[in-house]
Amino acid sequence: MIVYLNSEFLHLEKAKISPFDRGFLFADGVYESIRTYNGKLFKYEDHLNRLRRSLSEIRLFFDEIKKVENIIYELIKKNNIEAEALIYLQITRGTSFPRIHGFQKDDVNPTVFISAASFEVNRREQNEGIKVSLQDDIRWQRCDIKSVSLLPIVLANQNAIDAGGMEAILIREGVITEGSHTNFFAIKDETVFTAPESNLILSGITRIIVLELCNQLEIEVKEEFIKKDELKTFTEFFITSTTKEITPVINVNDWIVGNGKPGELTLKLKKAFDNLVENY
Amino acid sequence: MIVYLNSEFLHLEKAKISPFDRGFLFADGVYESIRTYNGKLFKYEDHLNRLRRSLSEIRLFFDEIKKVENIIYELIKKNNIEAEALIYLQITRGTSFPRIHGFQKDDVNPTVFISAASFEVNRREQNEGIKVSLQDDIRWQRCDIKSVSLLPIVLANQNAIDAGGMEAILIREGVITEGSHTNFFAIKDETVFTAPESNLILSGITRIIVLELCNQLEIEVKEEFIKKDELKTFTEFFITSTTKEITPVINVNDWIVGNGKPGELTLKLKKAFDNLVENY
Repeated sequence: MIVYLNSEFLHLEKAKISPFDRGFLFADGVYESIRTYNGKLFKYEDHLNRLRRSLSEIRLFFDEIKKVENIIYELIKKNNIEAEALIYLQITRGTSFPRIHGFQKDDVNPTVFISAASFEVNRREQNEGIKVSLQDDIRWQRCDIKSVSLLPIVLANQNAIDAGGMEAILIREGVITEGSHTNFFAIKDETVFTAPESNLILSGITRIIVLELCNQLEIEVKEEFIKKDELKTFTEFFITSTTKEITPVINVNDWIVGNGKPGELTLKLKKAFDNLVENY
Repeated sequence: MIVYLNSEFLHLEKAKISPFDRGFLFADGVYESIRTYNGKLFKYEDHLNRLRRSLSEIRLFFDEIKKVENIIYELIKKNNIEAEALIYLQITRGTSFPRIHGFQKDDVNPTVFISAASFEVNRREQNEGIKVSLQDDIRWQRCDIKSVSLLPIVLANQNAIDAGGMEAILIREGVITEGSHTNFFAIKDETVFTAPESNLILSGITRIIVLELCNQLEIEVKEEFIKKDELKTFTEFFITSTTKEITPVINVNDWIVGNGKPGELTLKLKKAFDNLVENY
């Protein structure tokens, strides 16, 4: 596997980060996951804009963002990825010694790491739906920044897996914020509900697409927090993300949703999404 | 500089972490900072116990903890550190590919990184006292785990520095929890106040020593949250940590505390602390 690290294309085994990288010491960095459809980076500008925003919120200046697109296509080529690719991109505040909590005093030389791997969506999850597990949302209060400070996510996701789920759905003060690495949607009375944009969620690119599709299909949307106590008043659920696309949820904490099959409106949205990406 | 990484002593330039290390990708790791007095690791067992607890709370199994002490002394020797040393130790959940949020399915091979550097306490800060800046505590709800998921700390500390302070003192829901990398103490009416142990603070080794010293000196202690609105009713403040020891605070958000010099009881505790470490 060839990866990109700080201006070089390298075999993964040769791509090495310093232990004094602030990404390793302090989680002082941000990231994006981007994928291709038909060999073309999907919603690249939206990912880039989100990356710019994350960088700006953590006050990390990176002036080579325009070079990234070419690097990604070069990586796809060098790795001979013939079908679809999943790109991972991480930028940290570089290396500094000695370890100090505030930004380094000397010039910041950001660490830029990009990988590209073959990717196939999990069709079984998408067709049959998945089980999710409710977990406490104990994250910091800037979940709108796509940072690598992800230990709370790791633990929530693993707790969900241990409970037999595929994803953790996070509850803060009695309401659902989002999944550990997905956005969460619920449906009742032909209306789609999802948490509003705020510091408590990372508004996904796929989340925005779903809202646009609802608009096109004239499906009513309410960007409102879903109360945990009212979960059972909903008839359909799904999660969204770059890798999960629209994945139906058929089981929440062992409660089987409806007839245990993906819901009608979920499938309608999924069809519209599939249509969109097929023609991208 | 010679560092220790995964069973090897290496020159820092040769010590390299994989970009797929979960410490780099997810902040999926914990750490300790330990120092020597008179060439001897100070309160080593306490640091080790806290490390064991952190590892256990993030469910990271590491069975070579008993080897660490020898490695540290070996590092001090290899780096020819003649006076005092500051040790940094970080353990992450190792490398895994592909990137998945939950723990890797294959065997976990933790990444162990240890560095040792010459250390001298900042005598000027200790003698003259420092300025601190109040900042919002927006961290996650498991601040009792000494994890590397530290981006909120980086940003709070930098905001404090930008405000002319040396440390950020964190406010959550109207009360002071702790500093960005120190514990916070306030004094009035001959009584020492500091936040109680809970999920909202990282109870420092030096914090515990100060509580013990108060006990020995028959100084009353109240482990209670200090309200931000009541800060000006206190007459002395100080912060504690392994590297800051007991450092007086003489300025909070540009409010000059008392006569702008370290307080009497603070100096009494500092003297007792100095006495303790001199004879360690």
